[in-house]
Amino acid sequence: MPDHPTQDAMKRTLQAYVDLINAGDAAGVTALFAPDAVIEDPIGSPPRSGEAIAAWFADTVAYQTRITPVAPHRGSHGNEALLVFDVEFAPPGGERLRIRSADACRFDAAGRITSLRAYWGPDDLGPAG
Amino acid sequence: MPDHPTQDAMKRTLQAYVDLINAGDAAGVTALFAPDAVIEDPIGSPPRSGEAIAAWFADTVAYQTRITPVAPHRGSHGNEALLVFDVEFAPPGGERLRIRSADACRFDAAGRITSLRAYWGPDDLGPAG
Repeated sequence: MPDHPTQDAMKRTLQAYVDLINAGDAAGVTALFAPDAVIEDPIGSPPRSGEAIAAWFADTVAYQTRITPVAPHRGSHGNEALLVFDVEFAPPGGERLRIRSADACRFDAAGRITSLRAYWGPDDLGPAG
Repeated sequence: MPDHPTQDAMKRTLQAYVDLINAGDAAGVTALFAPDAVIEDPIGSPPRSGEAIAAWFADTVAYQTRITPVAPHRGSHGNEALLVFDVEFAPPGGERLRIRSADACRFDAAGRITSLRAYWGPDDLGPAG
């Protein structure tokens, strides 16, 4: 097995991540991650791993999250790829929000996501359009 | 001094990087980087630092590089920000090319770029449109 998945395999996983969240499939999106994966969303916040990742995606789906890619997925010459998107969601009891974000992902040889780091800051968050 | 620049300062530096390259100002864009900065462009290629960075941007300008951001710059809750763009350039003796790329940058407290890692893979490179 090569030490990293193909570019196409990584991009297909990024698209599956979008499609599974938009379909409300929390278990499906969680299964895209390796058991030892770490999510830092946003960058600068405490990393999540293990059971916290399943809980994170359960919340994501409960908040009626909808992801819209805004540029073609970017690959690399290694085991990393990038998903650039806008996301809308409704936190409990709040108005619907929009974040301009990007998920920088690293993959293992089996094509599972081992690291997801999300680029969005306080200024990238606002009311949904 | 805070341990990282403001979100606005990082985004202004990303835009300056675009504008200086498009203006052909290799010295100006090199000056956006800290002395110990490292560039990995694309991710998976050997990192460049020191004099190799000045040489890199001299080549960038010589290749008539033009960068077009394709989404608003993304910040973070730390000292990192992301520039998502398409870039066109003419390598020596070759046809004009286009890369769909994104530069993930880390900044020091003074607002200089200390790390730039570019997300683009073989499939993200093609002839200019």
